[in-house]
Amino acid sequence: MPKIMVAPQAVYGHAKNNLRVIPLGGLEEVGRNMTIFEYGQDIIIVDMGLQFPDEDMPGIDYLIPDVTYLKGKEKNIRGVLITHAHYDHIGAIPHLMERIGNPPIYMTELTRGIVMKRQEDYKDKQPLNIHTVKKIDRVRLGVFSVEFFHVNHTIPDAVGLAISTPAGTIIHTGDFKFDHSPVSDAPADIAKIARLGSENVLALMSDSTDSRTPGYSLSESRIAKTLDDIFERTEGRLIIATFAALISRIQSVIIAAEKHGRKLAVDGYSMKTNVEIARTLGHLQAKKGTIIPINKINEYPDGKVAIICTGAQGESNAVLMRIVNGEHRFVKVHKDDTFVLSSSVIPGNERTVQGIMDTIYRKDAKVINYHMMDVHAGGHARQEDLKMMINLIRPKYLIPIHGNYFMLKLHGELGVSVGMDPRNILIGENGRVIEFDYRGNGKVTSEKVPLSNIMVDGLGVGDIGQVVLRDRQLLAKDGMFVITVIIDGKTKKIIGKPQVTSRGFIFVKENFDLVNATKKKVEEVVAQKTSPDAAVNWDYVKNNIREVVGQYLYQKTERRPMVLPVVIEV
Amino acid sequence: MPKIMVAPQAVYGHAKNNLRVIPLGGLEEVGRNMTIFEYGQDIIIVDMGLQFPDEDMPGIDYLIPDVTYLKGKEKNIRGVLITHAHYDHIGAIPHLMERIGNPPIYMTELTRGIVMKRQEDYKDKQPLNIHTVKKIDRVRLGVFSVEFFHVNHTIPDAVGLAISTPAGTIIHTGDFKFDHSPVSDAPADIAKIARLGSENVLALMSDSTDSRTPGYSLSESRIAKTLDDIFERTEGRLIIATFAALISRIQSVIIAAEKHGRKLAVDGYSMKTNVEIARTLGHLQAKKGTIIPINKINEYPDGKVAIICTGAQGESNAVLMRIVNGEHRFVKVHKDDTFVLSSSVIPGNERTVQGIMDTIYRKDAKVINYHMMDVHAGGHARQEDLKMMINLIRPKYLIPIHGNYFMLKLHGELGVSVGMDPRNILIGENGRVIEFDYRGNGKVTSEKVPLSNIMVDGLGVGDIGQVVLRDRQLLAKDGMFVITVIIDGKTKKIIGKPQVTSRGFIFVKENFDLVNATKKKVEEVVAQKTSPDAAVNWDYVKNNIREVVGQYLYQKTERRPMVLPVVIEV
Repeated sequence: MPKIMVAPQAVYGHAKNNLRVIPLGGLEEVGRNMTIFEYGQDIIIVDMGLQFPDEDMPGIDYLIPDVTYLKGKEKNIRGVLITHAHYDHIGAIPHLMERIGNPPIYMTELTRGIVMKRQEDYKDKQPLNIHTVKKIDRVRLGVFSVEFFHVNHTIPDAVGLAISTPAGTIIHTGDFKFDHSPVSDAPADIAKIARLGSENVLALMSDSTDSRTPGYSLSESRIAKTLDDIFERTEGRLIIATFAALISRIQSVIIAAEKHGRKLAVDGYSMKTNVEIARTLGHLQAKKGTIIPINKINEYPDGKVAIICTGAQGESNAVLMRIVNGEHRFVKVHKDDTFVLSSSVIPGNERTVQGIMDTIYRKDAKVINYHMMDVHAGGHARQEDLKMMINLIRPKYLIPIHGNYFMLKLHGELGVSVGMDPRNILIGENGRVIEFDYRGNGKVTSEKVPLSNIMVDGLGVGDIGQVVLRDRQLLAKDGMFVITVIIDGKTKKIIGKPQVTSRGFIFVKENFDLVNATKKKVEEVVAQKTSPDAAVNWDYVKNNIREVVGQYLYQKTERRPMVLPVVIEV
Repeated sequence: MPKIMVAPQAVYGHAKNNLRVIPLGGLEEVGRNMTIFEYGQDIIIVDMGLQFPDEDMPGIDYLIPDVTYLKGKEKNIRGVLITHAHYDHIGAIPHLMERIGNPPIYMTELTRGIVMKRQEDYKDKQPLNIHTVKKIDRVRLGVFSVEFFHVNHTIPDAVGLAISTPAGTIIHTGDFKFDHSPVSDAPADIAKIARLGSENVLALMSDSTDSRTPGYSLSESRIAKTLDDIFERTEGRLIIATFAALISRIQSVIIAAEKHGRKLAVDGYSMKTNVEIARTLGHLQAKKGTIIPINKINEYPDGKVAIICTGAQGESNAVLMRIVNGEHRFVKVHKDDTFVLSSSVIPGNERTVQGIMDTIYRKDAKVINYHMMDVHAGGHARQEDLKMMINLIRPKYLIPIHGNYFMLKLHGELGVSVGMDPRNILIGENGRVIEFDYRGNGKVTSEKVPLSNIMVDGLGVGDIGQVVLRDRQLLAKDGMFVITVIIDGKTKKIIGKPQVTSRGFIFVKENFDLVNATKKKVEEVVAQKTSPDAAVNWDYVKNNIREVVGQYLYQKTERRPMVLPVVIEV
């Protein structure tokens, strides 16, 4: 008889023979994608992205995943796999790789080019240990073995991953759509996806970003056709704004420019960089002479040139904004220019984009955007595409990833609609461990790994907390009101008058009466709350000043500036 | 031979016999609608609305039109005409009526009900002199004579205006759409519009809010049908959120509730008020017993009740937010509740609404919104409706109103597409005078009346300027850093140490080194820039502190908090 063994759980705190899938980001938001796969002493990581902040995080550049869970486990990390070169999948690499021990990192050629370029801004960091993979490769990483398959997205060289684990195979789609007629790219490798699907897939982790939109996603060639039509019938200059990372769109514009005999200038640092990398690596085709430098733009008649640039979201420092505001060195708006805003508008940017449109129309130029024509296709699978992916993979479990919680839920409902068992839809959340045992039974556990919002603001990473953010919001709302009081150490009386410094509240110079009345209130508080005979609790006095002044200002103005008393005893 | 007469222009500075049309708001934005019509010594005004602020106006409640032009002309104002009871058309009434001499004000019955209700919040103001008009009325106001015609919108009792002037007739549509099957309202009075159109209309001022959307606007009965379907197949509780002012939608929900045997609770102060007013005036029909108080909601099974409430935009204090966050006194989210967000999402609110959807799905309830089904129809004419209006009115001039500049331009292009002379499309702007002479020749003049942004913030109207706003934006971005320095009046040396008070920048307690290094910088500046022998220019010292500290903090953090030196000599 075999002797009784202690269950592995007792040793490790969690089952040694369980596969643990831990999303650190991307399950409650769009962006900051990063997932840990852990089995025993082996860990692999998929993606390492950043997320742009909400409106209630003023001044924050972006957020990155919290890797506290990996502390002390650095030696177990066999590798990091990157699905494609968008910032919500690669943006945290410079901030996190050193902290997790700089493990080897695997990605396709174009992704590598873009990651390496960004790394130049972080010269003080250790060099990355990048392995370039081809889509036919198979990579062994500890107990894991990973195959890649080609998917369509708005950037070429995007892959999904088939991750073989001792508990079964997990398919991770990355960001994807099916495009049967992409521009300068192959259609998603449906044959390989189907083959993987025939091999008893344990779980499908699939992109939910567009799970609320019915139907099929638009093909890039549809957009290329619209752009071609626009080039065909436009006589003046064409200025096309889009995302710098939308390589496929840039390709569509190059093709249209060449067909209609226009030179094309590319402007915007990140777009120029991406074009250069993609061209060098053969992921973007342009004939010699098509692309001209932006400073040559005025050497051609308007009907013979086009510009493609960054700033379709109204970003304040991007090229489009500078052109429209007359601040661009070489490009001024001409009468009869046609601007094409070839992107969707990210929530929060609509008013800015409308403002740009107003300015363009005021200058007698015009705008075509996605409201008016099919000048943009998203990069994400819609409902029918998602069902097709589920049908191809036929997984035991579906784990919707990438998107707000409601998008994950809607994606789960699609799984049920094509016949999956509702109990096999695993809706996870950031930081919560999903576990599969050796029999292939999976569940979302109650275990949560430590996770907080790590904010990057200027040079600081993680040094902005909720208190600072909350203060910024309050300051934005009603400004602030600093009261400085100098107290004579002996008499405990105010020396001179209290001083008021206010910003963002009211214009002090025009509101002498209010300010003077407030100073009087402060003097009363100090007189009441201090006495020359006893030691004074200055915190108590300050709190009193804050309270009395705050109430007084609210009563007079119905505004609540942040009241900051500075009391100094000399 | 008649003797030579001095042209009236020479007397008045502008032609006495010219009709002057002066939009004070609504031509470069959505909201704040208000237009002046002036002929000689007679003035009438159409609408008096407010506008909700942009994201770059933190803390501002709303904006109202600047009526500086009317100063000294109060005695000429014959009347104010209101087209319908939405805040972008009535919201500035309490703030402006007294300032323009409280002239008579004309509106339909429902509009009056809602205006009077809001007036209760402004008890210190003079009572309004309201004249209730019927749609068959004709009102004489000085040289002007005004007829009303019924249009469809999302609120009943909306009218357009036919304004007879000595220079010709101007048609002002107000906000409108054509709805051939509205809910509990009559279709727009196309017969009357056509009759007005047969009378040689000089100019059509028409609503451009939805001029960029192709096709026809949706009928409210289409939405009613969708809502009916939702009631039909939903077993759990139904919670429908929409705008308080969307009376037609509320009617559709009442009808569906009655048909499917559900009680309906109305919640949200403004919605309850509007329902009460509209019911009293017969603009909203509900059977006795259909509407129940919100505190009775739990006395019925989930399948037998529905709730209609405010907050579909994610407004932080509205009912929907309170229900979803578990803060509502009577309504908690139940498993299998269905929330219907029966509105579009106003630019800027998308992320908040997505957050609400996440929370609802987390509580195992679900959401239906306009992405998924036709649960919202806008209140504004689309391109085909706008063309129909132009064809019915056959005006000499088209003056697109209500909307961003590019919307006006697109509306103008529609006019040209149905055969109007491009020279007869008058694209105006806020404050710029449009003039028609006695021969009916119109133009946008170069004359601009004084116009600035009047912001309402708490009790203050117009006391927030660009400086204060700019400060709020800066404070929000990187916070602030107050340095207080006490100087000995004799020695010109610092007493004690400089004090630092910072908010929204970094967490000072965790950054002692940075703060101490900054204090040292301040001490250096003071030592360098002062001497005990000479009078000190403290502004100069302060500027130096600001500069040195600002640069130092940026170098260390790449952030730019607002640096405020307070230097006090004792």
